[in-house]
Amino acid sequence: MELVEKMLSGNQLALARLITLLENRADDLPEIMRTVYPHTGNAYCLGVTGPPGAGKSTLVDELTSVMRQRGLTVGIVAVDPTSPFTGGALLGDRIRMQKHYLDDDVFIRSLATRGSYGGLSASAKCIVKALDAFGKDVIIVETVGVGQTELEIIEAVDTILVVMVPEAGDTIQTMKAGLMEIADIFAVNKADREGATQMAAELRAMLSGRQIPTYWEIPVIETEASNSIGIEELYAEIEHHREVLSETDQLSARRRKQREGELIEIVQRRIKEQIIARMKKEERFSSLVRKIADGEIDPYSASNEIFSDRALLQDCFQ
Amino acid sequence: MELVEKMLSGNQLALARLITLLENRADDLPEIMRTVYPHTGNAYCLGVTGPPGAGKSTLVDELTSVMRQRGLTVGIVAVDPTSPFTGGALLGDRIRMQKHYLDDDVFIRSLATRGSYGGLSASAKCIVKALDAFGKDVIIVETVGVGQTELEIIEAVDTILVVMVPEAGDTIQTMKAGLMEIADIFAVNKADREGATQMAAELRAMLSGRQIPTYWEIPVIETEASNSIGIEELYAEIEHHREVLSETDQLSARRRKQREGELIEIVQRRIKEQIIARMKKEERFSSLVRKIADGEIDPYSASNEIFSDRALLQDCFQ
Repeated sequence: MELVEKMLSGNQLALARLITLLENRADDLPEIMRTVYPHTGNAYCLGVTGPPGAGKSTLVDELTSVMRQRGLTVGIVAVDPTSPFTGGALLGDRIRMQKHYLDDDVFIRSLATRGSYGGLSASAKCIVKALDAFGKDVIIVETVGVGQTELEIIEAVDTILVVMVPEAGDTIQTMKAGLMEIADIFAVNKADREGATQMAAELRAMLSGRQIPTYWEIPVIETEASNSIGIEELYAEIEHHREVLSETDQLSARRRKQREGELIEIVQRRIKEQIIARMKKEERFSSLVRKIADGEIDPYSASNEIFSDRALLQDCFQ
Repeated sequence: MELVEKMLSGNQLALARLITLLENRADDLPEIMRTVYPHTGNAYCLGVTGPPGAGKSTLVDELTSVMRQRGLTVGIVAVDPTSPFTGGALLGDRIRMQKHYLDDDVFIRSLATRGSYGGLSASAKCIVKALDAFGKDVIIVETVGVGQTELEIIEAVDTILVVMVPEAGDTIQTMKAGLMEIADIFAVNKADREGATQMAAELRAMLSGRQIPTYWEIPVIETEASNSIGIEELYAEIEHHREVLSETDQLSARRRKQREGELIEIVQRRIKEQIIARMKKEERFSSLVRKIADGEIDPYSASNEIFSDRALLQDCFQ
């Protein structure tokens, strides 16, 4: 807890160490988070997602520069759940973002699953909270693709930027991926490539057909991150979205929904852990497992037995 | 249930429809699975994983040909959790596997998250069970990378084949990804590329340093799937692994562990669903959410309140 106090008082090293604890889901994570939590809620959280190779990192880098010019401090959490095999890309990100590494007001952390089970989205959210409590003005969460983990992470941000590149089939894939439903802003990056204008037009056409929120018209911005083109315009839209969210009470609605999600997640995890630990000790449970293995019963019927055994369930919540 | 009966009697169309129901996690999934389950346990299940572009699909295609030559029927489940953006690749797979599409004894299904939350690994496992019950001799589960979802899926197979390609850093990444721990067999594919022999040697050296199971020495096979080179040798190792597992009782031990995992997963999901549905209705719960949103309490302390409220928990298990 000394570490948390140090972090809250602005110690960068303490922040880095704390984040490592959160990344590794240290045993005292709940205690850490209880101390961190009251200091959160001030940062604005931007999520950036899109396919591999869309230039998300470069775009995040450029947006960070714009934010720094405006005197904002920035925290960046880059999540790559497929990273066992893309460690090179992560490393590349770090090198690419090198100019900000020398800037004390930009904190960058890359997260990878490294083959570890679950917890990545939970860890990422905790790290965002820590950066928030530390006092960062903006926190950027960068994720590749839109798998389960990424969707869970991206749910916890205020503004979602979806980065696309002009490539055959991407517009359709975006629709299929449900990105239309989650995007607040689209960037068509590498806009110097053939097909960029067409892609932007396609996106706008699709969006005009299905604008659901009345308070916000989803913009499509063409950018060339590697040539610093379109970044100011993109940033203006992010700012604009933030203002609209605040004015329409959508920001507090989003955050209330996030808080509910956080509570459910924590309760679920605790119940899950208790169930695994307790049930495995119960003879009634192991005898069911034996029966399943011996083909005497299927796991669905076995779960019915567990759920009809009120005493067993209640024992697990002692 | 009529559909299940038709499927069990060997109707291909019924199988395809049933799998679609399982993929969409239809409401009567538990009932379907209760009927399917007693017919499972006969198929041998091979998991194939590795980085994108390693040539897994081509290798699976080639292995399928070898299995077909031996008169074995094959079911293939290709899972690509990052697929919102790689739909093209999936489509490519289907085209590439076209020769087997004309073969009634090969059933291929590609699964993609399409932005949907969770359930992918659970669906994939159910589909494997359905193919097993249908009577396929071998089921091949192909996954990209080793994220959470893929690891969950791959846990449910009998033999795990990890496909690598000679590329800088991949050996290290494999170690980091924990693939050393899960691989039963390594294939170094695209073995005509520079560095293939070195990579195979590196893998062998690393493996010799950390062979944990005494019953099986993990082989490293060089293959060129697109030229049908090394496939017979690879298949022989798969067969060999299967024999060793059977002889050493490891197969039944693996499967008992899988059955335990299945039961825990089903129980967890039911509890999770009950909690979400019931808790959201409870005024005690919504008042906690309001307090969190208002900054009066953090979600970790709120979860403590829920866990100390025995009555609330027990209400959720009525």
